[in-house]
Amino acid sequence: MTSVTSQRAVRWHPPSYDIRIETLPIPKIEHPDDAIVKIQLAGLCGSDLHMYRGTARLTEPCIMGHEFIGEVVALGASFHPSSTGRPHLYSTLHIGDKIVSPFTVSCGECHFCRVGFTCRCVESRLFGTPLTPGGQAQYVRVPRAGGTLYSLQDIPDGSLLADSSLLLLCDILPTGVFAAFQSLSHAKTLPFTTRQPYPLSASPPQIGNASFLPFLEEDTSLTMAVIGLGPVGVCTCIALLDMLVTRKLKFNVIAIDPNEARRAKMASIYSIIGGNHQFGEFQVADTNNVKELVANLTKGFGCNAVLEVVGNTSALRLAYELVRPFGCINSVGVHSDHTVPYKGVELYDKNVSLDFGRCPVRAMFPMALELLLKRQDVLGSVGGETSLVEKIASLDDAVQIYDDFDKGKCGKVLFDPFK
Amino acid sequence: MTSVTSQRAVRWHPPSYDIRIETLPIPKIEHPDDAIVKIQLAGLCGSDLHMYRGTARLTEPCIMGHEFIGEVVALGASFHPSSTGRPHLYSTLHIGDKIVSPFTVSCGECHFCRVGFTCRCVESRLFGTPLTPGGQAQYVRVPRAGGTLYSLQDIPDGSLLADSSLLLLCDILPTGVFAAFQSLSHAKTLPFTTRQPYPLSASPPQIGNASFLPFLEEDTSLTMAVIGLGPVGVCTCIALLDMLVTRKLKFNVIAIDPNEARRAKMASIYSIIGGNHQFGEFQVADTNNVKELVANLTKGFGCNAVLEVVGNTSALRLAYELVRPFGCINSVGVHSDHTVPYKGVELYDKNVSLDFGRCPVRAMFPMALELLLKRQDVLGSVGGETSLVEKIASLDDAVQIYDDFDKGKCGKVLFDPFK
Repeated sequence: MTSVTSQRAVRWHPPSYDIRIETLPIPKIEHPDDAIVKIQLAGLCGSDLHMYRGTARLTEPCIMGHEFIGEVVALGASFHPSSTGRPHLYSTLHIGDKIVSPFTVSCGECHFCRVGFTCRCVESRLFGTPLTPGGQAQYVRVPRAGGTLYSLQDIPDGSLLADSSLLLLCDILPTGVFAAFQSLSHAKTLPFTTRQPYPLSASPPQIGNASFLPFLEEDTSLTMAVIGLGPVGVCTCIALLDMLVTRKLKFNVIAIDPNEARRAKMASIYSIIGGNHQFGEFQVADTNNVKELVANLTKGFGCNAVLEVVGNTSALRLAYELVRPFGCINSVGVHSDHTVPYKGVELYDKNVSLDFGRCPVRAMFPMALELLLKRQDVLGSVGGETSLVEKIASLDDAVQIYDDFDKGKCGKVLFDPFK
Repeated sequence: MTSVTSQRAVRWHPPSYDIRIETLPIPKIEHPDDAIVKIQLAGLCGSDLHMYRGTARLTEPCIMGHEFIGEVVALGASFHPSSTGRPHLYSTLHIGDKIVSPFTVSCGECHFCRVGFTCRCVESRLFGTPLTPGGQAQYVRVPRAGGTLYSLQDIPDGSLLADSSLLLLCDILPTGVFAAFQSLSHAKTLPFTTRQPYPLSASPPQIGNASFLPFLEEDTSLTMAVIGLGPVGVCTCIALLDMLVTRKLKFNVIAIDPNEARRAKMASIYSIIGGNHQFGEFQVADTNNVKELVANLTKGFGCNAVLEVVGNTSALRLAYELVRPFGCINSVGVHSDHTVPYKGVELYDKNVSLDFGRCPVRAMFPMALELLLKRQDVLGSVGGETSLVEKIASLDDAVQIYDDFDKGKCGKVLFDPFK
């Protein structure tokens, strides 16, 4: 570890809109499970704006940022080879390892971590909050680092991955993969992917069948909508299209956003990733005319699944209007304290299923990494028409960049804290 | 078919509480897909009270009842062997067949019927409404009878089944099976049943894993709550316990109702069906102390799944309070126009999944029938302490029985219209 004791960091001050670039102490190991990571890149994310604008109502200053990749420069005693009684995860991380961190801490040991619901770890903490300083700095302390950090040392073909694309693994790419995966693995979607009628589609094999008619083409084709084409929405579309094509499923995907520039970007990305497959159709749509479009595509039935990547009431409402009976609404948007805009009878009458919540990033890494390797053509670039990352900036520019980002004047920015 | 042209039927008159036993014409074939069924038994169901009390706001009189079993006495031209172009279902029904009907019409031919979502058939109609006269009569006309009716002719061991138990197939037993099946087949429940962490638990096999720790006993045990111990809630408990025991899953099931008599009945039923298995625990609980009970049973985590069989806001709210992060709320209660009592942030913070809606009875028949054959010990009896059916009555008594049922003075009653 460096002998320098101070570092530079982006720190927010209450009540709102007050970002400062400060010189602060380099964090130290405080607990045997800690790691200190030297940051290579840190992301600025839409959800940082909750803090920036003061809507998170925090009263303590804090170092911002919940997306970071870097190199392990110090490890607590738990990682020492002589440490006993620690889980395997605490023997696989070494000084010098290049790592990706999920946006929340997960111990790797509790019930929720074991079953893969890592974002609901009993010790879950969100980076970039007063108790858990974030990654928009030169160094960060990672609690429960054996469970939290994902080492890239042994990833096959890892050298093919652009650092800017690895940063997408912290949050937005796994969140897109999670949304797509949830929608395709829901029991109500299975008839369309297994070509078996419900409940056979989700049954142990001994259950008898009810003599249904053979499936027609429309029974094996999935119509799915993605609402919101910010960076997470784009990742969701990329993940969903990849899963549909890989599994040779027939599909019709409609990607919805009221913002024309976002729709144009998604259309350009599809022109790269769409390929010449014969399985499906993809189109972008404005929120205004999408109900009619979906009705026309589906004989009025609606979508098998709607993936909601916005996090507000109108997006949830649109999702209901687009979903068909026995369809699924999959919401990865971050919601606030509004009541969900559904009447009981509406959900009953359409047999709607809903999946809400935060991506268990640590558990989704292998699946997201596989996609990242496949899609360096769009995920590996910076600053292009089809890039998710607009630029890589210095911490010096953070005040201006937060202001621009808040006002919609720039897209996703990464900080290189040693630039 | 009989040469008599009139029949007796229970008819409701608007606006409310007006039940009359009337002499009406025997229904005739009106469409080639129709069947006429001579009723053997018709059930009185809690949801009939919506109509009875006038809360369904209907303005036309109608013959009541959406649960009936009987014998096919006339069939339309579609069922004639020379009829061509009709689906297989329309060649399997014959005059003289003993049948069970789901509580809604399903054509057997549309997209929703083919994929098994039969209760959302494009021609779905609820029996016991002005447009589709019900089964509390001597005869009923069944539209789209090839898709709707389920013939019991070729059921192995069908002779072992009490008629009163076959009546339970029309609605309440499949609804319980559906609730139990949905909760066990949800992607978020699969880690506990497959012993694979999420997302591996629901993945095609090629997805890599994220090096989680081995599962401990608590990771393979399901804690599940059933809210509401009316007849459907009891069926839900019976179905859930059967699935858990059959699949050798470890479990803790808590059956909740504020009514002491209902809890006592469910406890008595468990004393019959519980057996000596070593897999799980079952208990009944009052709504008052159940949160503490669940917390104590689960280290404060909550239930993996909550099955809501009531259909009101307080049941939905209790379900949220009992469910653990990444748990499922499975609602088969019939909801009205209240807004669901959840804030967006609550659903996000717990990663809650919700499944709402009506049971696709026609699709669930084989699974429900299998359970019915297994559990004649409780489902086959009438009038006993552990019976779901309290008595079999004459249509003559319908006025008094509706009044008693409305006031909670009697349980589930079946009508024998030729008694």
